[in-house]
Amino acid sequence: MALKNAFYAQSGGVSAVINASACGLLQTARQHSEAIGKVYAGRNGIIGALTEDLIETSLESEASIAALKHTPGAAFGSCRYKLTSIHEQRAQYERLIEVFHAHDIGFFFYNGGGDSQDTAYKVSQMGAGLAYPIVCVGIPKTVDNDLPLTDCSPGFGSVAKYLATSIREAAFDLASMSRTSTKVFALEVMGRHAGWMTAACALAGEKEGDAPHILLLPEVAFNEARFLAKVEEALEQYSHCVIAASEGVKGPDGEFLSASGLKDAFGHTQLGGIVPLITNLISAKLGCKCHWAVADYLQRSARHIASATDVEQAYAVGRAAVEFAIAGRSAVMPAIRRLSDAPYRWDIIEVPLSEIANQEKLLPPNFIGADGFGITEAARRYLAPLIVGEAYPPFKDGLPDYVKLQNAPAPKKLTQEFAV
Amino acid sequence: MALKNAFYAQSGGVSAVINASACGLLQTARQHSEAIGKVYAGRNGIIGALTEDLIETSLESEASIAALKHTPGAAFGSCRYKLTSIHEQRAQYERLIEVFHAHDIGFFFYNGGGDSQDTAYKVSQMGAGLAYPIVCVGIPKTVDNDLPLTDCSPGFGSVAKYLATSIREAAFDLASMSRTSTKVFALEVMGRHAGWMTAACALAGEKEGDAPHILLLPEVAFNEARFLAKVEEALEQYSHCVIAASEGVKGPDGEFLSASGLKDAFGHTQLGGIVPLITNLISAKLGCKCHWAVADYLQRSARHIASATDVEQAYAVGRAAVEFAIAGRSAVMPAIRRLSDAPYRWDIIEVPLSEIANQEKLLPPNFIGADGFGITEAARRYLAPLIVGEAYPPFKDGLPDYVKLQNAPAPKKLTQEFAV
Repeated sequence: MALKNAFYAQSGGVSAVINASACGLLQTARQHSEAIGKVYAGRNGIIGALTEDLIETSLESEASIAALKHTPGAAFGSCRYKLTSIHEQRAQYERLIEVFHAHDIGFFFYNGGGDSQDTAYKVSQMGAGLAYPIVCVGIPKTVDNDLPLTDCSPGFGSVAKYLATSIREAAFDLASMSRTSTKVFALEVMGRHAGWMTAACALAGEKEGDAPHILLLPEVAFNEARFLAKVEEALEQYSHCVIAASEGVKGPDGEFLSASGLKDAFGHTQLGGIVPLITNLISAKLGCKCHWAVADYLQRSARHIASATDVEQAYAVGRAAVEFAIAGRSAVMPAIRRLSDAPYRWDIIEVPLSEIANQEKLLPPNFIGADGFGITEAARRYLAPLIVGEAYPPFKDGLPDYVKLQNAPAPKKLTQEFAV
Repeated sequence: MALKNAFYAQSGGVSAVINASACGLLQTARQHSEAIGKVYAGRNGIIGALTEDLIETSLESEASIAALKHTPGAAFGSCRYKLTSIHEQRAQYERLIEVFHAHDIGFFFYNGGGDSQDTAYKVSQMGAGLAYPIVCVGIPKTVDNDLPLTDCSPGFGSVAKYLATSIREAAFDLASMSRTSTKVFALEVMGRHAGWMTAACALAGEKEGDAPHILLLPEVAFNEARFLAKVEEALEQYSHCVIAASEGVKGPDGEFLSASGLKDAFGHTQLGGIVPLITNLISAKLGCKCHWAVADYLQRSARHIASATDVEQAYAVGRAAVEFAIAGRSAVMPAIRRLSDAPYRWDIIEVPLSEIANQEKLLPPNFIGADGFGITEAARRYLAPLIVGEAYPPFKDGLPDYVKLQNAPAPKKLTQEFAV
C-alpha cells in the first residue's frame, strides 16, 4: 500500500516559535519516510486546503527546514478563518475531502490556538461523518496561553520573556528621567480576554518597588478612582510608576475601555489603544508627564529574544504530533505536562481535541493579587520557568538572519476552483 | 598639590549605552589615580551639582562599574534642565562654582546631546567669566544621531539595530497574516526633527519588496494623497505594507501631524501617536485592516539587542574624555571619525564644544530617496556598519541582569540649599 501524505497548516495569530513546531514536525516526518509520504503545507492555513493551494515542503532543503527553528511568523502563511459545523458548512468539508483525496492525504496537522483545535477536531469528525478516514492531530500554539489541558501554550514563553525584558529596560529609562521629566510609563500588552501576557510583565520585578508597579488585567474590571490612587501611591513611594496594561481591560460595564470613543483629526473613531487613554487620564488628574508604548506585533514576533524553553517546547509538540499520527492516534493534541516548578521539568502527553476546542483558560483567581493590580507568588512560580534560557537566532550584518522558504506550489489535481 | 576631583553627569533622554560611556570614563579615571582624584557623579545630571547632591562613585565595586557597560538607562539619573547664558542665570553658575569649589572639582564631564554639549560649553566659559579654572569635556550621547562633527552619536546604533530588527520581525508576522487579516503594519519611531532612526528601519530590507515599504521622515512634508497612493502600490505589489513613521512627521503646514487633535473618551486632547492617525486614515480610505506599534522607551532602552559597535564607541568616548582632560584639553568633545565604510574603521578625534552646541544634524538630502519614502544607497552605506555586532547582557532567570548602583551620597559641605 502506498504511503499516505500529510497536510500541515498554521492558523490564527502567529508567534515567534510556531515555525519551531513546523521544524519539529517536518524533521520528524522526514525521519519517518517509512510511515509518511510527502508533507504538503497549506498556504495560509486551512485556506490552502480549500483552494488546493498546497506547498511542496519536500523541495525545501534540510538547512531551510532547520532555520525554521529560529524564524518568527508563519513560514507557510496563516489565516483567520474558522470552520463552523459540518452541518452548516458542508460544502467546505466536502471540498477538504476532495482536495485531501486528490493528494492522497491521510494525516492532518493543524497548528494553532483554540479555534484551530476546534477546526482540527471537526476535520477528525468529518472522517466519520463523510466516510473519509484521516488521522487528525492538533498542535498547540498561542501567545495568549489560554489553551486548557497543557501547562502552557508554545509561543507564550517567548512573548513573556520579551515583555518582562522590555518592562525592565523601560523602567531603567523611566527611573533615570523621573526627577525632572516623565514619571509614568505604560506598556500595552496583547490579550483581549486572558491576562497571561500582562501577568508575565511582573517577572521584570524581583523585589518590592521594582517595576512594574501596576498591572491592568482583563480579568479585573477597571476602576478609575482605585487606579489613580494606586498610581499616586507608586509615585509617592518610588517617584515613578510603570504600568503594564492589557489591551482587553474592561470598564465596570464590561465594555473594552479602548473602544470608548477616541476620535482622530479626520473624525474617525480611533482603533484601540488602552495606554494612550490611561496615561491621558493620569496626566489630566495627577498632572504628571507620561510616556506609553504599544508593542503590538513586536511582542509576538520577537524571535531575537525568544525563550529557549519555549522554543524547545514548540519543537517538541511538532515532533510529538508526527509520532502520535504514526501511532494512529487521531483527534488528539500533544500537550505539555509540568512535572516540577524548580527545576522546571516537563514532558509531552496526549490530550483529546474534544476537550480542548473552544475553551479559554483565563488567569485563575489565585494568580491575581488581592488588590487586583499584581500577581501572587503562585503565579510567579508558574510563570518563572517559561522564560528561562536564551535561543538567539544567527545574525548577519547586524540583523537576525531569518529564512524565507521557496514555498513552491504542488501541481493542482482538481479543475474546480473554490472561493473562500 | 592635591589632585583635583572630577564631576560626571548624564543628561537628557537616556540610551541603551550611555552607561557604557560612564563605564569607560570611570574605569579610565581609576586607572589614572595619579591625575584625577575622586569622581563624583551628579544625581540627575546637572541638578545634582546645583543641589550638591553628589554620588560617591569610588564606593562602587569594580564589578558594578564593569556591569554599567551592559546596563541601559542612566545609572546616576538624568534630567531635562537646560542652563541658559551666564548673563541670564548667573545664580546657577555661581552655585555650580560654589559646589565645585567645596568639593575641589577641577574636571567637568557632561554626557549628553546637543543641549548638554551647550551646557558643557557654558561651564567651560564660566571658568574664564567667573575666574574658576575647570577642565570641561563633553561626551556625546543621543539616540537622535543629530550631533554634528561626529560620524554618529553613541546610542544611535543600538536604537537602529532594535528598530531594524523589530521591523524585520513584524514584517514576518504581517506577511503571515495578510491573506485574510491585517495588511498594513506601522511602527512609530522616535525623533521629532531628525529622521535618522526612521531611516535606520530601512536596514531591515535587503532587496526590492522587503519591508519596510514606506518611511515617513520628519524631513519630508506629509502629503496624504501621495502617501495613500504609495500604500496602495505596496499592497498591489506585495499584498502587505510595512511603514516606519517618525513621531515628528509634519503636515504641509509644518505642524506635527500627531498634534492634530485626537480627543479621547474623557474629552482630553490625546498625546502623540502618529501611527494610530495614519493607520486610521488607511483603514478609512483603503478599507484594509491595520496594526500599529509605538516603541517609545522600548527602543532607546533595549540593551538586550544593543549594537556591539555602538557599545564599543560609547565606551571609547568615555575613555577618551578622561584622556583629553588629563592632557588639559578643555571645551572639547571626543568625536567619532569614520575612516572607511566597509570594513567600518573609525577612531576618536577631538572637536571643539563651541562648534557642537545647539546644532542639529538632519538627514542630508542625498540620503533621502527620490520619492521621499525611502533612503538612498549612500544612506545605507552610512547606516549599515553602525548596527553590526551583538553585545548581549548577561541573563539571570531568563532576564537581562542589569546593575543598580548604590549611589551613596557624598557628604554635603555647604549649608545653603539651592532650589531648581
